[in-house]
Amino acid sequence: MALIVQKYGGTSVGSLERIQNVAKQALATHRAGHQVVLIVSAMAGETNRLLGLAHAICQKPHMRELDVLAATGEQVSAALVSITIDSLGGQARSLLGHQVRIHTDNAFTKARIFGIDDSKLRETLDEGKIAVVAGFQGVDAQGNITTLGRGGSDTTAVAIAAAIKADVCDIYTDVDGVYTTDPNICPTARKLEAISYEEMLELASLGAKVLQIRSVEVAMKYGVPLHVRTSFNDSPGTRVVSEEGLESVVVRGVAYDKNEAKVQLIRVPDKPGTVARIFSTLAEQQVSVDVIIQTASRSGDATTDVTFTLPKTDLARVKDWLEEHVRSIGGGGVEYDPDVVKVSIVGLAMRSHAGVAAKMFQLLADQGINILAISTSEIRISCLIAAEHTEKAVRALHDGFGLDQA
Amino acid sequence: MALIVQKYGGTSVGSLERIQNVAKQALATHRAGHQVVLIVSAMAGETNRLLGLAHAICQKPHMRELDVLAATGEQVSAALVSITIDSLGGQARSLLGHQVRIHTDNAFTKARIFGIDDSKLRETLDEGKIAVVAGFQGVDAQGNITTLGRGGSDTTAVAIAAAIKADVCDIYTDVDGVYTTDPNICPTARKLEAISYEEMLELASLGAKVLQIRSVEVAMKYGVPLHVRTSFNDSPGTRVVSEEGLESVVVRGVAYDKNEAKVQLIRVPDKPGTVARIFSTLAEQQVSVDVIIQTASRSGDATTDVTFTLPKTDLARVKDWLEEHVRSIGGGGVEYDPDVVKVSIVGLAMRSHAGVAAKMFQLLADQGINILAISTSEIRISCLIAAEHTEKAVRALHDGFGLDQA
Repeated sequence: MALIVQKYGGTSVGSLERIQNVAKQALATHRAGHQVVLIVSAMAGETNRLLGLAHAICQKPHMRELDVLAATGEQVSAALVSITIDSLGGQARSLLGHQVRIHTDNAFTKARIFGIDDSKLRETLDEGKIAVVAGFQGVDAQGNITTLGRGGSDTTAVAIAAAIKADVCDIYTDVDGVYTTDPNICPTARKLEAISYEEMLELASLGAKVLQIRSVEVAMKYGVPLHVRTSFNDSPGTRVVSEEGLESVVVRGVAYDKNEAKVQLIRVPDKPGTVARIFSTLAEQQVSVDVIIQTASRSGDATTDVTFTLPKTDLARVKDWLEEHVRSIGGGGVEYDPDVVKVSIVGLAMRSHAGVAAKMFQLLADQGINILAISTSEIRISCLIAAEHTEKAVRALHDGFGLDQA
Repeated sequence: MALIVQKYGGTSVGSLERIQNVAKQALATHRAGHQVVLIVSAMAGETNRLLGLAHAICQKPHMRELDVLAATGEQVSAALVSITIDSLGGQARSLLGHQVRIHTDNAFTKARIFGIDDSKLRETLDEGKIAVVAGFQGVDAQGNITTLGRGGSDTTAVAIAAAIKADVCDIYTDVDGVYTTDPNICPTARKLEAISYEEMLELASLGAKVLQIRSVEVAMKYGVPLHVRTSFNDSPGTRVVSEEGLESVVVRGVAYDKNEAKVQLIRVPDKPGTVARIFSTLAEQQVSVDVIIQTASRSGDATTDVTFTLPKTDLARVKDWLEEHVRSIGGGGVEYDPDVVKVSIVGLAMRSHAGVAAKMFQLLADQGINILAISTSEIRISCLIAAEHTEKAVRALHDGFGLDQA
């Protein structure tokens, strides 16, 4: 008897017919003698519909209430999946974030889990029932509903798998695994059999939408074996595992991220702490900033230009503050460019290989692509380029690093 | 400064435009110096949409899960109303059944409130916020979500008004008050200025959909002054108050109820307890039975026919059991007739007036309408008739008892 966590994404529960498949699959696993915990997302399109209502009211809806609104999507799915399992002769119990007690902080719309009470889950499993947990949601110390950000159901699944020490956490999604790059724009992309937590983490951070970043962090921290696969057929997907026992390659995958906007602060005073204060304030507002470049101080006026990227979705929220702040410290203004893309290469062996960055820059230069900014980590190199070059850049990097060959 | 509870029905929150009106009305009340608690229903059509999904899966969806599903309707409304109030410069906090802590029993889909914790509400009001409570829902002792049955938001409103000792409980609905009968089928119907709790209770029990029965019971028990009115204009509605200070009339209103089906148990053994056992079992299953008639025992075979009505919505649920049970005790079978209507007259002074029933039967007889069964209470007389005669019967009773005259 194994303890299995199965997470189903929005497409997998996107209609009553598909919910039938989910219920049958869960029941088959349960009848094979395993204990099963399902984590379900909102039906495809539902979260957008709900948030659309809120944004039709005003540009910046109250975030606590946004979470109350959005959490209903997964609640509906959990109820419908439970009803379906029950109608097929099984026994299921839906559990919401506050019923499991998935404790989070109070950062509404992007809360972090800090603990899961496993008693309600254990009780449900011990009664021979399938537990159907509403993904994406938790509860803060004051009893407020919180949500974990887009893709948060992945994190719910992994955190629950860690809490109940599940044998495996199957992530059923609308793609059949993790690819060397997006097959939609690169015809030579291949499905990976396995990938390390670290690499998956970088890819997820870079806009590969297969898994939420936070879910990979939690999986890595607690060593939860993940299996990313499709609910539409039985083909094996991609296992996300620890580095050991995984073939080391220089570049495991190529990612691109169109969700970032370039922001440029013009002629801000080049005094110690001035720029740091801007970024610490953005961090307090839970805005993830990347690819920061500060140009050398201009001779003469002791000012500097600062370039960085932040998620387009956060731009509206911080725009007013940013412009006012730059004005208040005597800066020259703020400029925005949303037509940019961040292309990245990721690979564990980059740590011990020299010349990878040089090769990347050369491959882009060969295509006549100008690099606007660069950021790196131990196992990743990212270049900010004009959005129009996305496809050309991804294909050149993918095949240039030999990812088209098995 | 008054403490005001305002309840808005599904039509009043049926679109984002209407929600704007609700928010403005609540804010105006708040800015006039009052403390305001809003109770909101699901957006018009939403509860039906949700239950439709469940019933597309199977005929008898698991009731615990039905409540998890249906409760999302009010949750969405509460969030949207709160977001709107916030966007208009006010401060609001949505509260769900389990957050207020509206304690109910565990009779899923028709739970009863047995207590309300007022601390979260008080805290919200003391912070100067408008509390926006999701109607229709509560939480049982195990933390399961429960719902209070159709129209349950009225009960939420009245129970909360009682718990926080509100000065008034305004019930905003899509009609502008309580009428002497349904104006849609009787052109001479008039709006009542006031009605007693007892009369309202009878009318609500009889299918007048203005207020949920349970809400009137709670209002009567705790003396909560109700005001039934429309959110679409400022016209005064109908006050629901205690008997004292209310003009006593023989007939206050005429009601009809098409939601009952006639059930006939054929040739069941006429032994003590046999029939009682059937009704006690139905009661255990939370089925409300009315208009029970047991014919005299047939000479020769010591059997009897039993006729009664029950809500059509409960029929599917108890049909199998009923037929099996009647067979098991040697009865002749069960027959159903859904094409019936219960027409009723209601009035406090009926208690002290003789001849009211006789006059009712005569008015129906004058129209050539056959009475299938009769039931009465202290202040009500109901006749079961063929559904095709509904309009004719209601008009004859309404004008026959002088309700067309002020």
